[in-house]
Amino acid sequence: MKNFQYYNPVRVVFGKGTIRELKKLLRDKSKILFLYGGGSIKKNGVYDQVVEALKGKDFIEYSGIQANPDYEDCMNCVLLAEKENVDFILSVGGGSVLDAAKFIAAAIYYEGGEPWEILIGKGRIKKALPLGSVLTLPATGSEMNANSVISRREIGEKRAFSSPHVYPEFSILDPETTYSLSKRQVANGIVDAWVHVLEQYMTTSLDSPLQDRQAEAVLLTLLEEGPKAVLSNKDYEVQANIMWCSTNALNGLIGCGVDQDWATHGIGHELTALYGIDHARTLAVVLPGLLSLMRKQKEQKLLQYAERIWGISMGDTNVRIDEAIARTCLFFESLGVDTRYSDLGIDEDAPEKIAARIDGRNEVFGEGQNIRGPEIIKILKNLKD
Amino acid sequence: MKNFQYYNPVRVVFGKGTIRELKKLLRDKSKILFLYGGGSIKKNGVYDQVVEALKGKDFIEYSGIQANPDYEDCMNCVLLAEKENVDFILSVGGGSVLDAAKFIAAAIYYEGGEPWEILIGKGRIKKALPLGSVLTLPATGSEMNANSVISRREIGEKRAFSSPHVYPEFSILDPETTYSLSKRQVANGIVDAWVHVLEQYMTTSLDSPLQDRQAEAVLLTLLEEGPKAVLSNKDYEVQANIMWCSTNALNGLIGCGVDQDWATHGIGHELTALYGIDHARTLAVVLPGLLSLMRKQKEQKLLQYAERIWGISMGDTNVRIDEAIARTCLFFESLGVDTRYSDLGIDEDAPEKIAARIDGRNEVFGEGQNIRGPEIIKILKNLKD
Repeated sequence: MKNFQYYNPVRVVFGKGTIRELKKLLRDKSKILFLYGGGSIKKNGVYDQVVEALKGKDFIEYSGIQANPDYEDCMNCVLLAEKENVDFILSVGGGSVLDAAKFIAAAIYYEGGEPWEILIGKGRIKKALPLGSVLTLPATGSEMNANSVISRREIGEKRAFSSPHVYPEFSILDPETTYSLSKRQVANGIVDAWVHVLEQYMTTSLDSPLQDRQAEAVLLTLLEEGPKAVLSNKDYEVQANIMWCSTNALNGLIGCGVDQDWATHGIGHELTALYGIDHARTLAVVLPGLLSLMRKQKEQKLLQYAERIWGISMGDTNVRIDEAIARTCLFFESLGVDTRYSDLGIDEDAPEKIAARIDGRNEVFGEGQNIRGPEIIKILKNLKD
Repeated sequence: MKNFQYYNPVRVVFGKGTIRELKKLLRDKSKILFLYGGGSIKKNGVYDQVVEALKGKDFIEYSGIQANPDYEDCMNCVLLAEKENVDFILSVGGGSVLDAAKFIAAAIYYEGGEPWEILIGKGRIKKALPLGSVLTLPATGSEMNANSVISRREIGEKRAFSSPHVYPEFSILDPETTYSLSKRQVANGIVDAWVHVLEQYMTTSLDSPLQDRQAEAVLLTLLEEGPKAVLSNKDYEVQANIMWCSTNALNGLIGCGVDQDWATHGIGHELTALYGIDHARTLAVVLPGLLSLMRKQKEQKLLQYAERIWGISMGDTNVRIDEAIARTCLFFESLGVDTRYSDLGIDEDAPEKIAARIDGRNEVFGEGQNIRGPEIIKILKNLKD
């Protein structure tokens, strides 16, 4: 096991009817920016519950934060928050709204030049506005971590940042708020959480049996509950289990002391930035190619994954690995998420384009720091070597 | 799944050589009370590492905190801390020293009458002195929770309290500090952690598949690594895995949204208070009787435990349950920890005495709130009904 620090001060408030806890959680806040997305919260009753809990509080609303939240939108919010002397940002929605809230919170106090610097690794965050969330879409894990991903459409970029200053003070997770999600949203969320786990698990074997089993705990539960959730997302227990899985997939715990490989997200972000593909749908296409190409480096973990998740313990190494990858694809497809590059219907030269963009930024992925342009092309074309 | 809140702001600093991080972690503290136990840290080099990291800091020492930390000792520390205007308590040692630190931190600011009230559920903690720890004995989980257990020898009581104000600001976990533990201490720690898991797992089945698997992750890892650690506690990876298991056994995560049953600890504390038996040794004797007596209430979980931890899936219900309990006992005994009441060598009427004390306090245990005096007698005498 490698040395690590684990610090996660988010207060998770989980369960039925918990939105009313907002009143207590916001007791000492005086001016709140209530941030949300496209208005779905007005249809499913969440908006009303939030407004009820905010009664007597001074708050302003900003709506229209879109999936893959946009930099320009966020910067408008920064101006608004400054003008209105906001002292707290309340995100109500999925990971996109929350990621926007985190970026706004950091950008307000940013002392460098343009806040875009935060997203290209040039800016240091020393302070952020406090924020909290009501989560309505289990997927990104943003509710219990310090990460955020922002897109800048005018230049076709999608970039991430992380800072302990943007941990939500609290996140309210009421599984009932997920009842109005579409099948596509539910399926995307499950794939996103699955890939988050693999990005912290499917690397070098470092003698981390507890973290391995904690990761497998999330996978096995997603495997069991995922198909039920896609069939009907009105079963409270199923939704609660999926929601808690997504949070645990990316709250830092399973990543303690192990190597990580964020290649899938890194390459996926490019597909979204360039072609506007749903985040999870990019992951489902990148992952199989990654696992297949990097099979030597990830061998021990791939075999463990084959056995413990898919019950595959017979056959030679490559057969077991191929079978585990195939089963993963079948699982995603059973949820309605395609796994082949050809399913994306994009330019044939997209792999080369993406490889050039990542190389151009001198970015390298993989636990062995050995995934660059040439490997990215192979991953997207799903070539074994 | 039941509604729950999860909040745990402890910064865990884990790994080789991490004691030197104290310098940074204590940067803004001006007067530190350095608390430790019987002097073992002077033999194993931990004392020197801490003093080196404290160079240039104003600190005072208080040593001699014993296993099952004593109330009078703690009260002496409260007076000392007040007199010396201490603004931070640094615990260096195992759970006992840390539990003492937590109680001292809370007692200093206690506004009621005698601070003993905190331990008998009569006192409300509104504030506590900040504290942190260097952990040298994996067992209690105190390093990442808000619990503390204190004994008052003059009246033969052992009582617990919990308050979010006593979460350590940080806990440093360096597995190398455990190399000097005795086999008995190592074995005790493993049993303590095992029982912590069962107290949050072995209750009602509430459709909490993720929490179940997270609990099983700790058990399976202890089962794998425990015997290695008892054989030799100089293997870094083994010690690291045991240490991280103990922390995860009682940091609140596996207890999210599930029923809990702290009968084993409740009854065990009485055995320690009255007869001075090692904490873990009391648990190893109480647990089998509890599982056997409460088998109907815990049936589903007992069968799941039998299958997933011990691989027992054949035979009728009672046979499987008996076998799972027997395997648990064999595991504890393989570590050198006795599991029969007769092994304790104490008064024959101890069960009746303990039952009367617990009933006298109107305490009730069990996830069904149905373990009182008569059940406690049966548990200690290991009677099936």
